[in-house]
Amino acid sequence: MEEKEISQAVISRLPRYFRYLGVLKDEGVERVSSHDLSRIMHLTASQIRQDLNHFGGFGQQGYGYNVENLYDEIGKILGLDKEHNLIIIGAGNLGQALANYMNFERRGFIFRGIFDNNPAIVGTMVRDIEVRPMEEVKAFVENNNIDIAVLTIPKSCAVEIAEQLVSYGIKAIWNFAHVDLNVPEEIQVENVHLLDSLMKLSYNLVSHDKQGA
Amino acid sequence: MEEKEISQAVISRLPRYFRYLGVLKDEGVERVSSHDLSRIMHLTASQIRQDLNHFGGFGQQGYGYNVENLYDEIGKILGLDKEHNLIIIGAGNLGQALANYMNFERRGFIFRGIFDNNPAIVGTMVRDIEVRPMEEVKAFVENNNIDIAVLTIPKSCAVEIAEQLVSYGIKAIWNFAHVDLNVPEEIQVENVHLLDSLMKLSYNLVSHDKQGA
Repeated sequence: MEEKEISQAVISRLPRYFRYLGVLKDEGVERVSSHDLSRIMHLTASQIRQDLNHFGGFGQQGYGYNVENLYDEIGKILGLDKEHNLIIIGAGNLGQALANYMNFERRGFIFRGIFDNNPAIVGTMVRDIEVRPMEEVKAFVENNNIDIAVLTIPKSCAVEIAEQLVSYGIKAIWNFAHVDLNVPEEIQVENVHLLDSLMKLSYNLVSHDKQGA
Repeated sequence: MEEKEISQAVISRLPRYFRYLGVLKDEGVERVSSHDLSRIMHLTASQIRQDLNHFGGFGQQGYGYNVENLYDEIGKILGLDKEHNLIIIGAGNLGQALANYMNFERRGFIFRGIFDNNPAIVGTMVRDIEVRPMEEVKAFVENNNIDIAVLTIPKSCAVEIAEQLVSYGIKAIWNFAHVDLNVPEEIQVENVHLLDSLMKLSYNLVSHDKQGA
């Protein structure tokens, strides 16, 4: 219950903790202090202790954190102990790239279907999955326990399609369309606005150049 | 000069202002109040005024903001009034998807080259650009005024290749590899950690389910 009150800034750091702890685990490291974590993650030790305290504090004074335990706990908090069924809407280059990215599956995000409204693409194979027409989305969502939809479609149709997906029962949207969606508050949306990210890089590049000049 | 002191949180919002102002401009809207902007962008009006004040405040009391002027000014701040030359390192699915994404070019981000170390891919065409071998990156960067490198390679080689790119003169890296790079502070890095983003969505989905239960 109380987890919901945790700020999105803390949540945003959790996958990074999970990633670093995974590396330590793979290297056979058994325990790690907040000080050591702070060094490799470029955060302060007190920041790390604060972040992890939100989730019950897995550390022990003078011992630090048990790497495997902390890794597993953060994994559970992130919902990685269950499988999530995904569909991709839009079988263009980006949709295909995401469908082919095996790392997602290793973490329990399983691609079940991919859809497009272009007749030239419908029926082609992406990995081992046939691209289906958009008319089949509704039945597919209802019959396959789909909880996450990935939107890799142009912004011109994204808002409308997102609303349809929600009416079919989709609970979460990973949105790559370059527009903000308009869905009820209880629907989880994570935006990946690639052009925004590139513009931020451009800003930092240009403003750094100015400083140096 | 003073622009550099602006927090990354404000910078992160600039592309979004740019996007919304672009829509208003395309709709023929000439001026907009911070109140109207706040309504469509789901920010408070005072937040908007604060953000825009960082850049000299383009608004006038009782008039609001001139849409075209504000759009152009934010574009300049974001460095979109100049062209940036990009190369993509890694011609897999994601590299190809980014190379084919025309929206980047419209904003002045011009893909000049794409590189891979896989002999089966080298020599194939991505859009109208031939995939070159990694051995040619150095000369290409030096001869083509490349300032941004896009990394769409596995994390196992990303840290090393980023260091090489910096030694060749690359000033900014758009990093899609699922690892934090280790480059000098003056090199601008923007990370797009897709798996982290998906995990954040998963967290919000799972913690929302718990609340609802």
